[in-house]
Amino acid sequence: MMQTYALGIDVGGTNTAFGLVSRRGEIIEKGTLPTNTWATVQDFVHAIALRLQPLVDSVGHNNIVGIGVGAPNGNFYTGEIAFAPNLPWKGVIPLARLLQDAVHLPCTLTNDANAAAIGEMAYGIAKGMADFLVVTLGTGLGSGFVANGKILYGHDGFAGELGHVIAVRGGRVCGCGRKGCLETYCSATGLVRTAREWLLQRTDETELRAIPPDELKAHHIQQAAANGDALALEMYDYTARILGETLADVVALTSPQAIIFFGGMAKAGDLLLAPTRRYMEANMLNIFANKVTFHASALPDADAAILGASALVW
Amino acid sequence: MMQTYALGIDVGGTNTAFGLVSRRGEIIEKGTLPTNTWATVQDFVHAIALRLQPLVDSVGHNNIVGIGVGAPNGNFYTGEIAFAPNLPWKGVIPLARLLQDAVHLPCTLTNDANAAAIGEMAYGIAKGMADFLVVTLGTGLGSGFVANGKILYGHDGFAGELGHVIAVRGGRVCGCGRKGCLETYCSATGLVRTAREWLLQRTDETELRAIPPDELKAHHIQQAAANGDALALEMYDYTARILGETLADVVALTSPQAIIFFGGMAKAGDLLLAPTRRYMEANMLNIFANKVTFHASALPDADAAILGASALVW
Repeated sequence: MMQTYALGIDVGGTNTAFGLVSRRGEIIEKGTLPTNTWATVQDFVHAIALRLQPLVDSVGHNNIVGIGVGAPNGNFYTGEIAFAPNLPWKGVIPLARLLQDAVHLPCTLTNDANAAAIGEMAYGIAKGMADFLVVTLGTGLGSGFVANGKILYGHDGFAGELGHVIAVRGGRVCGCGRKGCLETYCSATGLVRTAREWLLQRTDETELRAIPPDELKAHHIQQAAANGDALALEMYDYTARILGETLADVVALTSPQAIIFFGGMAKAGDLLLAPTRRYMEANMLNIFANKVTFHASALPDADAAILGASALVW
Repeated sequence: MMQTYALGIDVGGTNTAFGLVSRRGEIIEKGTLPTNTWATVQDFVHAIALRLQPLVDSVGHNNIVGIGVGAPNGNFYTGEIAFAPNLPWKGVIPLARLLQDAVHLPCTLTNDANAAAIGEMAYGIAKGMADFLVVTLGTGLGSGFVANGKILYGHDGFAGELGHVIAVRGGRVCGCGRKGCLETYCSATGLVRTAREWLLQRTDETELRAIPPDELKAHHIQQAAANGDALALEMYDYTARILGETLADVVALTSPQAIIFFGGMAKAGDLLLAPTRRYMEANMLNIFANKVTFHASALPDADAAILGASALVW
């Protein structure tokens, strides 16, 4: 059987990971390169093409079906990245076409959360599931919805912007220019904003006061909560309440079988997911009560994004 | 060509409408019977079977493909009506099976909003659209989502409960037992609740004070607004703001091409839809701005529900 490999590329704000993946989901070889050190996207594409060449040569060009790319604000229909706030290239970038021309392989692109959902369907917890969603909890909050066994792209290819549902009307200013978006509360950045606000407004004792506010990161709060720090635990509870309330609404609209959490903050595991689930159930419409399962992604950490991107190709 | 007819049944809280429909969407014959005067659902099914028999005989049993039913809380997967607050029969009712046994034709059932969406796809504004939603504005608020050209049923068959998204956290008590559901604000019942609250709380002059509060209906408020009554217009504006804000979130999640409004309150036309659209755009994430079209259903009024239900069969 020919063409049993795919290239998977996960474009992140800081680094880009790539790999050669077999149809069974084995990563044969992989690597990374910086995303944000290139003057133009052409330079970036040139650099990644040079890095992909040895992988292509190792199994032969004819044995590779194509390239799958997950990227922030990536659009499946157009193959373009549109106005991604966390990438160095502004405006609309025809990344799929540029990669296709450089590597001489067909290239399919989607946003990173959809790539994660495809990865879960192909190789992860969502195998055999027709209706579920993946929530990516990292710097921001992304989501990929699967309905009737297919990614829900919507008319424009931009469906799944759960991070920009208004969770708190008139709330925190968001990078999108509006106020109260879910990701301004429920993401690594959101958690840090909660901490900085509360450390100013409140007088509770907490080990977080030992860290200069400008240097405070989500992992400090996670560590403090793991140590039993009451204020840090309350920050997680606050984050979980807003996320759980919003997910109850999402369930009412889409009736998923499962919600799968992916990315840095999902690694906090029960610290975040247990109270999120509790708040979701407390706000759930009766016909959906205690039906939707909750999972942290079980795909091997560094590989999940590459697997998800490569799975676009099949 | 054989089997070119379908029976369509729209089960409402007060009345049930039925009709014999050709594949082209012509209603050959139709009728209604009361829903809520029968002691048991078996009596109801017996009564409707008697009324359907002449329609079946008129074209011949073998020329009818089946029966399509739209009903509140109807579940496509199970053919059951589950805990419908506005129907006289409590618990879980296997209506599709009962009708099938009584009429000896295969029966497919879904909720009334999904039936409306199918009707719009088959015979209405949504012909050729793959991603859109129908919002039914009547006593309650329902919705039917179409994604990738198919009704979004979700894992349980209950997707599309837009009426029970929490629009105002901690807001009005809803029949579902929770607080702040969209339909407690944005529906005929919701509009009347707004009016009763405001007439008590405020002192503005309004022609609505001439009507005893217990007798106040949505059509009174619509008439007052059409007459230019300032408070009635403000009630529509308030309703439109909450609906528009929520629809902006729905667009961020599902990226529809169009939103089609259906049912009694949609007939208020620009009185409600124009400000709703304005508020939706004012709250829209930039990538979706000015893309989603707004429509009032153009299907002939009394026939739309029958057409939608019958279209389930094809």
